[in-house]
Amino acid sequence: MNLDLVNRLYRQLDALPIYDIHTHIRAERPFAASLADIIGYHYYTELANSAQYRAEFADETDPAQVVRQVVERLPLLSNTVQFDWLTVIGEEFLGIERRHWLTRSWSELMERAQQAIDAPDYQERVLRRSNVRRIYMTNACDETLTGYDAGLLVPCLRTDAFVFEMDKPGERDRLARASGGSLLTAADFTSALEIVFRRFHGLGMAYAAISTVPNLKTRPVSADEAQAIWERMLAGKALDDASRQAWAAFGLNAVAENCQRVGKPFHLMVGVRRGAYPAGVSGGRDLPDSVNSLAGYDYLFNQFPEVRFPTSVLAESMGLELTSSAWIRHNVYPSGHWWYLNNPVDIAREVRRRLDVVPASKLVGYYSDAYCVEFILPKFRMYKYELACALAERVERSQSHPNMGALSEDDALDLGRALLVDNPVSLFER
Amino acid sequence: MNLDLVNRLYRQLDALPIYDIHTHIRAERPFAASLADIIGYHYYTELANSAQYRAEFADETDPAQVVRQVVERLPLLSNTVQFDWLTVIGEEFLGIERRHWLTRSWSELMERAQQAIDAPDYQERVLRRSNVRRIYMTNACDETLTGYDAGLLVPCLRTDAFVFEMDKPGERDRLARASGGSLLTAADFTSALEIVFRRFHGLGMAYAAISTVPNLKTRPVSADEAQAIWERMLAGKALDDASRQAWAAFGLNAVAENCQRVGKPFHLMVGVRRGAYPAGVSGGRDLPDSVNSLAGYDYLFNQFPEVRFPTSVLAESMGLELTSSAWIRHNVYPSGHWWYLNNPVDIAREVRRRLDVVPASKLVGYYSDAYCVEFILPKFRMYKYELACALAERVERSQSHPNMGALSEDDALDLGRALLVDNPVSLFER
Amino acid sequence: MNLDLVNRLYRQLDALPIYDIHTHIRAERPFAASLADIIGYHYYTELANSAQYRAEFADETDPAQVVRQVVERLPLLSNTVQFDWLTVIGEEFLGIERRHWLTRSWSELMERAQQAIDAPDYQERVLRRSNVRRIYMTNACDETLTGYDAGLLVPCLRTDAFVFEMDKPGERDRLARASGGSLLTAADFTSALEIVFRRFHGLGMAYAAISTVPNLKTRPVSADEAQAIWERMLAGKALDDASRQAWAAFGLNAVAENCQRVGKPFHLMVGVRRGAYPAGVSGGRDLPDSVNSLAGYDYLFNQFPEVRFPTSVLAESMGLELTSSAWIRHNVYPSGHWWYLNNPVDIAREVRRRLDVVPASKLVGYYSDAYCVEFILPKFRMYKYELACALAERVERSQSHPNMGALSEDDALDLGRALLVDNPVSLFER
Repeated sequence: MNLDLVNRLYRQLDALPIYDIHTHIRAERPFAASLADIIGYHYYTELANSAQYRAEFADETDPAQVVRQVVERLPLLSNTVQFDWLTVIGEEFLGIERRHWLTRSWSELMERAQQAIDAPDYQERVLRRSNVRRIYMTNACDETLTGYDAGLLVPCLRTDAFVFEMDKPGERDRLARASGGSLLTAADFTSALEIVFRRFHGLGMAYAAISTVPNLKTRPVSADEAQAIWERMLAGKALDDASRQAWAAFGLNAVAENCQRVGKPFHLMVGVRRGAYPAGVSGGRDLPDSVNSLAGYDYLFNQFPEVRFPTSVLAESMGLELTSSAWIRHNVYPSGHWWYLNNPVDIAREVRRRLDVVPASKLVGYYSDAYCVEFILPKFRMYKYELACALAERVERSQSHPNMGALSEDDALDLGRALLVDNPVSLFER
Repeated sequence: MNLDLVNRLYRQLDALPIYDIHTHIRAERPFAASLADIIGYHYYTELANSAQYRAEFADETDPAQVVRQVVERLPLLSNTVQFDWLTVIGEEFLGIERRHWLTRSWSELMERAQQAIDAPDYQERVLRRSNVRRIYMTNACDETLTGYDAGLLVPCLRTDAFVFEMDKPGERDRLARASGGSLLTAADFTSALEIVFRRFHGLGMAYAAISTVPNLKTRPVSADEAQAIWERMLAGKALDDASRQAWAAFGLNAVAENCQRVGKPFHLMVGVRRGAYPAGVSGGRDLPDSVNSLAGYDYLFNQFPEVRFPTSVLAESMGLELTSSAWIRHNVYPSGHWWYLNNPVDIAREVRRRLDVVPASKLVGYYSDAYCVEFILPKFRMYKYELACALAERVERSQSHPNMGALSEDDALDLGRALLVDNPVSLFER
Repeated sequence: MNLDLVNRLYRQLDALPIYDIHTHIRAERPFAASLADIIGYHYYTELANSAQYRAEFADETDPAQVVRQVVERLPLLSNTVQFDWLTVIGEEFLGIERRHWLTRSWSELMERAQQAIDAPDYQERVLRRSNVRRIYMTNACDETLTGYDAGLLVPCLRTDAFVFEMDKPGERDRLARASGGSLLTAADFTSALEIVFRRFHGLGMAYAAISTVPNLKTRPVSADEAQAIWERMLAGKALDDASRQAWAAFGLNAVAENCQRVGKPFHLMVGVRRGAYPAGVSGGRDLPDSVNSLAGYDYLFNQFPEVRFPTSVLAESMGLELTSSAWIRHNVYPSGHWWYLNNPVDIAREVRRRLDVVPASKLVGYYSDAYCVEFILPKFRMYKYELACALAERVERSQSHPNMGALSEDDALDLGRALLVDNPVSLFER
């Protein structure tokens, strides 16, 4: 690989504004308030917990103690890309040198970070330095969503609760509150969803989103079947697996119907096993499942041809399946590199494969999944570097490949821009 | 990677004659009659449909309208390897420059192509330029198969219908016609198969072929069990899943028995979900399944030790399984890179892995799966380039690898020739 | 890739002493006694059988005939990494030149090898040349384990029989003998296990090990349920699948409890289909299953937080799952590259992925799985070369990667040393 070419391409990709199409950034507090907001991110607490376990750590609530315990374990994680993200945040935003993470005390680091964060131009500097144009949020149905910068932050409706948690009274109450009615029947549920979607549409929502359990099977579910399950849930009776799956299918259909009604995409994040490791830290208890298939989504994709489905998967074994689906299905769009697949090896493979066989206009390059703005830059850098490598390889191969026409650096950048800017804009901002 | 070395190796691989061991080329019309035969190939219609959906497109029958709609969408697909195949056909056979696909009108392209196709030496030129030595066809049991160039085209008996579609009266009728008898019992079915195989053997068949559904389980099926299912099929009753699977197992055994009797291989293409996307264009409705295993084929492989099974898979998750099976099983031969796995990323991985751990004499390099001769050249070029890269890497590594002896370019080419020429000849032409 | 850098790194990795944390080397005869012990290794007999089948070969017991038949087929396997291992053994230990394997007669090779093996300093020379510091064995519960070099060889208790074979009277007898009691109840089984673990602990055992069937589900099993199954086994009744799985879960829990009691790790090798190819040679009948998930091990990992689980998988589709589990679970340690995954392509991917996202202190680099000492060197060389490539790439990328600090060659070697020496020592030698 020609590293000069990689670097040239990277620098130009780096200059593109960031459209971060999926984050958990909060409207009311998009930036870190202390180092604990950064180093308390589950990517660090879980690695610290994994590298050197202490049972009590998962329940630690004191921010200083979280910082201390993670910082003390950083030497054990310094090989990871997650550590690299941290050093970028240190260097770019916090005035902390790379080596200091491993050599200074946790309290000194915490103070140094606080100094930077408390500077009056901190947020503006982070945004400018990151060159972030748009940040898509993850919002619950009952969020008020007022008083935020609507030019920067875009609401997206998270729908997991409707599909997987309607047996929990608390979640039903939230939906009832959000829709201003009471939920006595499955039909009430459907109406409530419609009200919520109408409200979010009014707020400028970009899309509805969901993360799903492995081996979900979408299918038609009759109103009667849904009503019977709803009654059991209202009565507080435990659901058997079949009922649970039937409701999930019913809920997914209901969400997709509303996406169709308001003309917005339905972003799928497919296949996470929640709570696989209960002793883990918050955010660090879920795992992929290598046995999972997109076959279960046939009905959903087929039944809603007008709904666009940007889709992420969580198993390496599903990479070809997602690529193939996007290759032939008009309404499936490979989206980013989710969670455990958000690492250089898996990104490198999927970027190349997608660019080889899926229309480039259908590829959504990347999202950060970040909880505060500071993480957007290092995560996008990681992706852009892999993309630069893939594009450089493409340029190089095109010089000698018997089937390819010579690809210029500008051509390659056009591809990069499509993935990073054009496609997110056309999918989510129209 | 040393690109000069890649290019030198590629040029020598490119000079090898092509044995294209699996195609859908028709004996009665092997070449394209118009641009519609080329650009109407499902690899283009499905990408066009995927990139910019129009519900009616799937039903379009007017060749000119197919050409128009695909050509209009070509800019959306110009990043794909499939587009590159098209440009090779344009440059090598049709007198159409690469850039013209994106700049000229569909009607001009169609006329230009027709001019080339209508030239008296067109077919001879395509064959010579492609350096195709042998083309294996996919033939139904009732094809007449007369009047074709038997030195170039080799019949192969497709057996999907016997295994998966005997519940369709039309398919039973074809088999009855082909075997000249009536099919009243499962024993009649078995006899009919024997007659068909005898006829195909007389026609010089190379092998029997089948594509299978995911999660098939081969097993012994008694004559009585088969007879009971046959009666239900004759009576027009719907088959439950268990009966369907039992018949599939019975049918596979029957095909394998006939392969054994006539001493020909049984080519398996494992695991395609047919009709996953019903709104897709013809040929663009099927998908892989990432949950599938070769375990279901244990019985078949074990029960027929004298039958050779060249085998392709359709899921990336099965690559190691196929490689491992060929590594220890004497009658499993990894064959080519099927359909969705026929892309540079997946070819690159599988070629290297197979060359590392499977006896080279067991590897069938590639087949085009083409519907007209024109596609053989660009598809083989794509494969040969990946093979050249893998071989170049092998030569380079051998210089410094502590376990390897120095591999010369000639040694590397011997490997390439084994995969592309020697093994296909010894498997299918003896 | 900078080959000079790869070579420099390789030479330094090669200079590290070998801790071979999983082998099948026998305490009573660690070295080959003749060429048959080397070339009769299933990696050669199975490839020979696969390349050129002869039904009787699987039953061949005459060492000379085994050597003859494999040597005659070596030209068919000369592309494989397994052949390269053999040539290393020839050059380093047996005085056989690489080319002679393909050009000399089997009897000449056998004599030449015998000459080398019979030299008085042979074993000492193999050990010194290989730079092996420690070899972990695979021991059955009833092995006497006396009279071996305890500084070199470390016992490890293999536990497959307790979990999967207690329905076999012979296996129950071995356990009874090993524990000095009779096994009338499931509680006796539990006590016997405790006695065996106590004895092995006294012998300096490093860990307990097991290879598991695909799709195992760990779960709590009550004493009553276990007792009921035990009675059926004692009575010689066939176990149904559910009972078989329940006993496996019970047995795994019992082994894990004992690991906890003696403070030793439980090494898992996950997911092999035993006996898939019954006509294969000994050791060459088992295959991976591409449909398998670590989800079935949730209970085991969660229930025994104090037990460390070094874990190998056998399916490429499980690579991300294992990596993710080690990333968040404190007691899962990715261990080596098992059997069919022990090839350059799969090692290269997994090494990079593990180094990117798992704390380096949790990675167990490699084990040879060898049956005699001679194979340790070539197998470790193969791994170390892939590791050198991965580290060289890391050094190179660090020069230009926007997130990485410059990684020196010494830093890279520290990582290599962690995987090859430090982590094995801290996991297994404390």
